[in-house]
Amino acid sequence: MRILITGAAGFLGSHLCDRLLAEGHAVVGMDNFITGNPDNIAHLAGNERFAFYRNDVSNFILVPGKIDAVLHFASPASPNPASPFGYPNLPIQTMKAGALGTHNCLGLCRAHAARFLLASTSEIYGDPQEHPQKETYWGHTDPVGPRSMYDEAKRFAEALTMAYHNYHNVDTRIARIFNTYGPRMHLDDGRVVPNFIQQALRGEPLTVYGDGSQTRSFCYVDDMVDGIYRLLISDEHRPVNIGNPFEMTMLEFAESINRIIGNKAGIVFKQKDRLGDDPQRRQPDITRARNILGWEAKINLEEGVCRTIPYFKEKLGLV
Amino acid sequence: MRILITGAAGFLGSHLCDRLLAEGHAVVGMDNFITGNPDNIAHLAGNERFAFYRNDVSNFILVPGKIDAVLHFASPASPNPASPFGYPNLPIQTMKAGALGTHNCLGLCRAHAARFLLASTSEIYGDPQEHPQKETYWGHTDPVGPRSMYDEAKRFAEALTMAYHNYHNVDTRIARIFNTYGPRMHLDDGRVVPNFIQQALRGEPLTVYGDGSQTRSFCYVDDMVDGIYRLLISDEHRPVNIGNPFEMTMLEFAESINRIIGNKAGIVFKQKDRLGDDPQRRQPDITRARNILGWEAKINLEEGVCRTIPYFKEKLGLV
Repeated sequence: MRILITGAAGFLGSHLCDRLLAEGHAVVGMDNFITGNPDNIAHLAGNERFAFYRNDVSNFILVPGKIDAVLHFASPASPNPASPFGYPNLPIQTMKAGALGTHNCLGLCRAHAARFLLASTSEIYGDPQEHPQKETYWGHTDPVGPRSMYDEAKRFAEALTMAYHNYHNVDTRIARIFNTYGPRMHLDDGRVVPNFIQQALRGEPLTVYGDGSQTRSFCYVDDMVDGIYRLLISDEHRPVNIGNPFEMTMLEFAESINRIIGNKAGIVFKQKDRLGDDPQRRQPDITRARNILGWEAKINLEEGVCRTIPYFKEKLGLV
Repeated sequence: MRILITGAAGFLGSHLCDRLLAEGHAVVGMDNFITGNPDNIAHLAGNERFAFYRNDVSNFILVPGKIDAVLHFASPASPNPASPFGYPNLPIQTMKAGALGTHNCLGLCRAHAARFLLASTSEIYGDPQEHPQKETYWGHTDPVGPRSMYDEAKRFAEALTMAYHNYHNVDTRIARIFNTYGPRMHLDDGRVVPNFIQQALRGEPLTVYGDGSQTRSFCYVDDMVDGIYRLLISDEHRPVNIGNPFEMTMLEFAESINRIIGNKAGIVFKQKDRLGDDPQRRQPDITRARNILGWEAKINLEEGVCRTIPYFKEKLGLV
């Protein structure tokens, strides 16, 4: 297939480029570099099956030649208001990527009779009142809250994807992506995994906000990309959760990182100063991914962190 | 003020045109007539303070001259899949009006330093788990369900409105509009008020779906327009519910219509064949509208129905 990936220079987008190329596909990458990083795809320069267009998918998408599939991964994705890459600081761009960008991608898919895969998110579940979250759960988000630019954009994108599927018979997929980590994450996007790994590598105490009892489930990027690829080549139109259901508290996670990296500086607790409706718990129910895609995460936290360390060491100049 | 109203030929939009002209404003109406009806504004032809542009606000908005306020009322609004005007049959147009249309309106307001008022809806509360619904309630909607094209479009529109307010300092208002009835409703849009009034005027039994225990609160259009106008001239940026909190069951409502119109044909019950997630209950908490706008509905059901009857009689050829 010849596959267009929007957000190709992002964390997930760039890993997807690698995987699709490894599977023998031709890849057309697109990014406007608002939050994507050219370094993430620099190694693909010269690859004859890879082309790149610098473009904002919210405005238009013009790609010469036939496209067989579109993977829409363009969007700011960090909830951290302290990060320049955080969607609270890019609200209009985030909403345009989710609505106008998805609309442009779906229009292209309709014109090319191409397959569409939407990068949706566990954030559509908001601060969930059902745990773990099944795909049938409707979610709990505040339409005018501090995270609404992201949550509502992704909910809209899902609804628009279903509308194009039901009304125009576009061949669509919806991946609900849970927390993922690995090489090529922004060092300063403010999310917990890069924060912890950096602090541990520098020998500093790890900062835990609140009492550390809030839980997360982290998936290593290679597992995530495998799940997304399996969904792409499946026939499943309804949303599918992709994530690692292995849940731990922030405190357990910090202790694990310190242990894996050998950091003796311990942990400091700080008052929660993050977004007010930061969810307390988030864990995917991956029954559908297991049954439909034969997929589940295989890489445990220790292995994932060890695979991630070299990237952070290099970026931090610790090599 | 010189005020642009999108959806000006719609039920609410056309009544707003009348009210704003009566208040001495100049009005620029815009509609693409997908669900709007030229008859609703025919009486304004020749009014020197009224101009009209036939245009799809999802594509672009180009209006000569200065605009002081934009009221974005363009959208299909009937949930009925059996109606040609129902949003289940116009999913893409509905989502474009909510996302691209709102984006275009907000861009225009930013350029003109104009006020913006979004016609949002009680549908953002979905099938509510809190009753009555306060503005702080986050709602309960299915992002991939049969009503998602409308619910998620309006939730997105609210989030985008707040984003433009917070990020670009656009002077915005969000009206969460509950069920409204009155002259100029589509006769065949499939909603309960026109259905009941038509059946009663024809001397037919009124059709109640299910057991008639589901409740609704109906607001007469003049009350609604008054609430919207008060919100427009207020300084309130957070969402405000506008609706009549007087709640009755469908069965009580049917009985009242028969009594008011003097229909002896009674009621027939039919199996629910409407949209699967038709909400069971919906009632506005209007504490904020009372406190901030000094507004509440004043026209009771009997008076509202009596004011509506002449329009339906004329349309049905019963005059």
